[in-house]
Amino acid sequence: MANTHAPGAPHQEHHNSSSDFIKDVVIGMSDGLTVPFALAAGLSGAVSSTSLIVLAGLAEITAGSIAMGLGGYLAGKTELDFYNSELKREYEEVDTVPDEEKREVKEFFRELGLSSDVQDKAVEEITRDKKKWVDFMMKYELNLDEPDPKRARNSAFNIGGSYIVGGLIPLSPYFFIQHPTDALKWSVVVTLVCLFIFGFFKSRVTGINPWWGAVRVTLIGAAAAAAAFFVAKVFQ
Amino acid sequence: MANTHAPGAPHQEHHNSSSDFIKDVVIGMSDGLTVPFALAAGLSGAVSSTSLIVLAGLAEITAGSIAMGLGGYLAGKTELDFYNSELKREYEEVDTVPDEEKREVKEFFRELGLSSDVQDKAVEEITRDKKKWVDFMMKYELNLDEPDPKRARNSAFNIGGSYIVGGLIPLSPYFFIQHPTDALKWSVVVTLVCLFIFGFFKSRVTGINPWWGAVRVTLIGAAAAAAAFFVAKVFQ
Repeated sequence: MANTHAPGAPHQEHHNSSSDFIKDVVIGMSDGLTVPFALAAGLSGAVSSTSLIVLAGLAEITAGSIAMGLGGYLAGKTELDFYNSELKREYEEVDTVPDEEKREVKEFFRELGLSSDVQDKAVEEITRDKKKWVDFMMKYELNLDEPDPKRARNSAFNIGGSYIVGGLIPLSPYFFIQHPTDALKWSVVVTLVCLFIFGFFKSRVTGINPWWGAVRVTLIGAAAAAAAFFVAKVFQ
Repeated sequence: MANTHAPGAPHQEHHNSSSDFIKDVVIGMSDGLTVPFALAAGLSGAVSSTSLIVLAGLAEITAGSIAMGLGGYLAGKTELDFYNSELKREYEEVDTVPDEEKREVKEFFRELGLSSDVQDKAVEEITRDKKKWVDFMMKYELNLDEPDPKRARNSAFNIGGSYIVGGLIPLSPYFFIQHPTDALKWSVVVTLVCLFIFGFFKSRVTGINPWWGAVRVTLIGAAAAAAAFFVAKVFQ
């Protein structure tokens, strides 16, 4: 869930498949650990049998992993389609309105604060080669990086899979313990420990203080579970 | 959910509060319409009373909106903290290792494909003013834009609120209709219509074909609901 604007590790530009994988796992696992946990906790205060909680939990994990996985797939596909249609358009514009496009290149260097003389030289050198010119426009006028075509499918599996793994952790005590409130105690302990560990590593990857990050992630999970518990109690 | 790499509207750089608001609503509404819908659909095939489905649905909406809203808040805060710590570091580096930092500026212009002469002139002009220099490093070496400090809090409310609104739509028939499978029929009709309309407008915002986008969003919702339904049937 959450718009994870995960910044790269400190002072380094990451954009390789291993960092993409970690990002996907973080996205899937964050919600997988939190939402099924909170749903199960909410129902624990309101129903008398764990089998119902397992049922609702599995339905939620299925729904959530598909929504996130397919959602990630479509987001990736959309990004790729969008990139390709813009690329085509830039090639056309460079042919049909070259002066306008040159003006836009110049504008970029003007905004960097370069002198008029250097602006003109840079424009001349960049627009000499059409591919270089279009690549420049894609990246600096439109702020678009070329997406990896395989990324959408991989992302879907990584996010969906992480959601399932994350979601089965809080649900697992309900498989073995009959009384909901007993199972809830185990689920709380196991899940908060996992959220803490997960938050620790997630924070290290995103370059913030890992202890403080771990506390924050754990508190979100606890808050969601507590709120779901009280809402279910009220509407019981 | 889903890593929404929503590209801006065609050929325009959006980064204002109205596009941020729309992006938040899209993130919250996507999952709000899909996951509670699929959970309720899943339970409809497996339990005999709608009151239980309402209970699970409300617990899920609570959990999901908090996880997404707080998740969005923390992501925003993390982004801001990270930006500020990197900014401080760049100011230090510009003081302590200016030659290294100049080399990095030059590298940027080299990668644009400019001649050595223009590279040197550009470096000289940018590194003349310390603020301009650091701003340049933040944006083009580290790829970081200055985040809006209020964005984290607004984002939390927008995403969480949209999740609640989205989630109450598929759940609403279960409030009024006693038998789960009857309520499910209404929920399917109402939600698929809403997903289609939502998908249409979402696609217009992200610049892809709105009809095709609407079909894709609707199919994801239907797939998640169908899968949850069958999983719940199996584990009934």
